[in-house]
Amino acid sequence: MTRPPLTPRAPGSQSALRARNRQRLREILADGPATQAQLSRSTGLSPATVSNIVAEMVDAGAATREATTSSGRRAWQVSLTASREVAVGVDIGRRHVRLVAATAARQLLGERFVPLPVGHTAQRTLAVAVEEYRALLEEIGRRNEDVIGVGVGIPGPIDQRSHTVIEGAILPEWVGIDLLPGLERAFNRPVRIGNDANLGALGEAHFGDHREVSNLVYIKVGTGIGAGIVVGGSLLAGALGVSGEIGHMGLQSSDVVCRCGNRGCLETVASTKSLLDNLRLAGRDVSTSEDIPRLAQSGDLAAIRFLEDAGRAIGEASGHLANILGPELIVVGGPLACLEAEFIAPLEASMRRHSVPLIRETVRVLPSSRGDLTEALGAVALILTDAE
Amino acid sequence: MTRPPLTPRAPGSQSALRARNRQRLREILADGPATQAQLSRSTGLSPATVSNIVAEMVDAGAATREATTSSGRRAWQVSLTASREVAVGVDIGRRHVRLVAATAARQLLGERFVPLPVGHTAQRTLAVAVEEYRALLEEIGRRNEDVIGVGVGIPGPIDQRSHTVIEGAILPEWVGIDLLPGLERAFNRPVRIGNDANLGALGEAHFGDHREVSNLVYIKVGTGIGAGIVVGGSLLAGALGVSGEIGHMGLQSSDVVCRCGNRGCLETVASTKSLLDNLRLAGRDVSTSEDIPRLAQSGDLAAIRFLEDAGRAIGEASGHLANILGPELIVVGGPLACLEAEFIAPLEASMRRHSVPLIRETVRVLPSSRGDLTEALGAVALILTDAE
Repeated sequence: MTRPPLTPRAPGSQSALRARNRQRLREILADGPATQAQLSRSTGLSPATVSNIVAEMVDAGAATREATTSSGRRAWQVSLTASREVAVGVDIGRRHVRLVAATAARQLLGERFVPLPVGHTAQRTLAVAVEEYRALLEEIGRRNEDVIGVGVGIPGPIDQRSHTVIEGAILPEWVGIDLLPGLERAFNRPVRIGNDANLGALGEAHFGDHREVSNLVYIKVGTGIGAGIVVGGSLLAGALGVSGEIGHMGLQSSDVVCRCGNRGCLETVASTKSLLDNLRLAGRDVSTSEDIPRLAQSGDLAAIRFLEDAGRAIGEASGHLANILGPELIVVGGPLACLEAEFIAPLEASMRRHSVPLIRETVRVLPSSRGDLTEALGAVALILTDAE
Repeated sequence: MTRPPLTPRAPGSQSALRARNRQRLREILADGPATQAQLSRSTGLSPATVSNIVAEMVDAGAATREATTSSGRRAWQVSLTASREVAVGVDIGRRHVRLVAATAARQLLGERFVPLPVGHTAQRTLAVAVEEYRALLEEIGRRNEDVIGVGVGIPGPIDQRSHTVIEGAILPEWVGIDLLPGLERAFNRPVRIGNDANLGALGEAHFGDHREVSNLVYIKVGTGIGAGIVVGGSLLAGALGVSGEIGHMGLQSSDVVCRCGNRGCLETVASTKSLLDNLRLAGRDVSTSEDIPRLAQSGDLAAIRFLEDAGRAIGEASGHLANILGPELIVVGGPLACLEAEFIAPLEASMRRHSVPLIRETVRVLPSSRGDLTEALGAVALILTDAE
């Protein structure tokens, strides 16, 4: 039996080795300037290797080097240069496009928001996004060359082999289009595409209040319901890029037929679409998901009752999700997450009822700490984590 | 905003740095002997650093160093020594204890098996395991000092903070005992404890037929039902060591009261215990889980019918699990996994029915490739991956 290729090993190539060594120097320099001799001592790399890497970093404008003295001897002091680099996140929703720009140090520099009509096409939305992208860069005083990449969030599972949206209900007009080439042409920058719930999880982990947490789940409750999973600080993407698809988990309490063809799926009870359908059946005048919290906060009993049912159903699915993943934290995002008593509380109680001991006693449930911005910030994080 | 502590960074301590550098040398030497100068060139480490690490390895008996010439100059040639090191895996079941020993190269050297009475106590089983451990070492010609560690698999979730078995139904006599000190004293070696399903997943990934697969789920169907999850080659352990607990996922098709207090849990329909209970109600004379495949293979219609129900129920849970994790492969383990037509086929069909597109079309379902040995081999892998 030969040794399995399990633990990912750094390829032995010179370029991979150099990247690894460069990353080690950057980590040390992130804490402050150091001499080349200090860098050599704290990494075990030879002085010649350190000198070569520093020379490359200086050439690339990533570092500066100046002569100094250390313990009475001449030395080269190395400092990281303040960077003009930013990453841009684009969050495309069923009825909006939102852009944010942030630095590698997780500083938010600016944001833009444009409402879109339901049924917007990929082509039209792309044009709007590019216009807003230019306006955003102008606002924050950056050129296109300063953008290290553009992360784009799409509501729906994405086949990472073909970069296409798979399932049609949320953005049917977008299904099957190979998005990456068009996006890279439009922005003239490297682009990465992610599912909205996955990006929500990344956004919470990189820009949220819970950055000490390395195992978290972000549950996006919108027209669809999906989960983003961060394990050990990284996104759990699944073998083909599809993961966290809890929207069609079957509920014991429902047998409503779902768009997927099964019965009793979570989305038939707990998506904002199903809530709006139910409120209309109950004679309420509602048109967008923002109407749901508005009604509930005005004391509408039907809205409060439906939200509680939805919370309980999502809690059941969250309990199973937590049993499987054992996270520290479940973050709830989307337009209903602001409703603590009406939605988050029944969700949490039901999650605890459906989870095993230890999980039940330890997992926390909280609304998203970055609200509407979370997923766009996650799209930024998709670029930053790639570059790190 | 400061940079989040997300990507696990190697701690800056000298010992962590040294371990990392030592591992880099071992990786290169695994492909064959090299001179110290070659090691320095291919790692970027200074000749002094390389020389220090090699000296440590020679002192520890892990490498030999001999004078040679390279390009006409004197040089030190370094070779890894053939190792006598083994890891031992102990799989404790409700009615057995099994031991295996294997090398870091995944070579199985020997195994032992002892049936145990139901209701065996931790103390009694530990005594049996130690006796068998000594016999195993003698059989394979190794001393206790050659054992780099003993991995121990327990059926049931384990709180990795206290090293205690959490839930009582499978091994009630073991609940709440801090197992680690007793085990380390008994074997006089470092011990790691794992949940049986987690170890099954590790066993498949390290010793099974699917070692090229880096995302797999192992579903253990026994007296309880649990899943072990390997993502990117590593065990998904959860924040506290509990994960893959699918046994209490609620099924739409059942409302039988479960030992956990909820209704319709997977285990009420599909555990070997529930199958045995149902077969007894149907007047069949069964006592152990081995009787189930025996009955089914003899054409007993009740057994075949119950197995199909169980397969479908586990398939439903597997579909949700696959939607969440997006694995390449689901491996089914336990005494029923040998029943292709009666059990695996309905399980697979139901998994596909309950999974989203792309998952449905790509995930494979297979019986365990190492049979009864899988979990003990996983206990070995727990030690080996720790040491690597």
